[in-house]
Amino acid sequence: MSNEDREKLLIAYDIIGSKWTIHILFTLSYGPKKFSEMTRSIPSITQRILSQRLKELQHHNLVKRTSPQRPTRTMYELTPKGVALATFIPCLMDWGTQN
Amino acid sequence: MSNEDREKLLIAYDIIGSKWTIHILFTLSYGPKKFSEMTRSIPSITQRILSQRLKELQHHNLVKRTSPQRPTRTMYELTPKGVALATFIPCLMDWGTQN
Repeated sequence: MSNEDREKLLIAYDIIGSKWTIHILFTLSYGPKKFSEMTRSIPSITQRILSQRLKELQHHNLVKRTSPQRPTRTMYELTPKGVALATFIPCLMDWGTQN
Repeated sequence: MSNEDREKLLIAYDIIGSKWTIHILFTLSYGPKKFSEMTRSIPSITQRILSQRLKELQHHNLVKRTSPQRPTRTMYELTPKGVALATFIPCLMDWGTQN
């Protein structure tokens, strides 16, 4: 395996290797959501972890916050890069249960 | 998100969320390999972790050991289920560096 391939795999792992990340990307693949909607959609996640993961995903340019006039209306949505990653998730889900 | 979807995502995460798992699947996607060949292919992995990951991957029916007459010739290869998962890895690698 080349150094370049190893590095690419580490970059991919850095994102998908964090618990709940694929859940968050999957839930946002249905459209922008408020923080409270996400906690309802993924009941096992704590607010602290959700907040941390959203910061990481924004840092990786996978998720962005909308900029509403009223802060309570803040929503999170996938960036084009986030959409590209989220595309693989249903394949991964089917794969896990098919076999 | 339905309970079923949450469960499917946890199954997928259970596998791809372990460090070095995608490296091992990627390296075996080029064909069967001996343990020592894998440690050379992924120099950062320790023998202990590689051995543990191979056990997990065998438990999940993603990797199997060949049954040679001479034990020193034991090789590891992807099962059909492993091949199906490994197919996504190059997409993930490209995605990580493209954006």
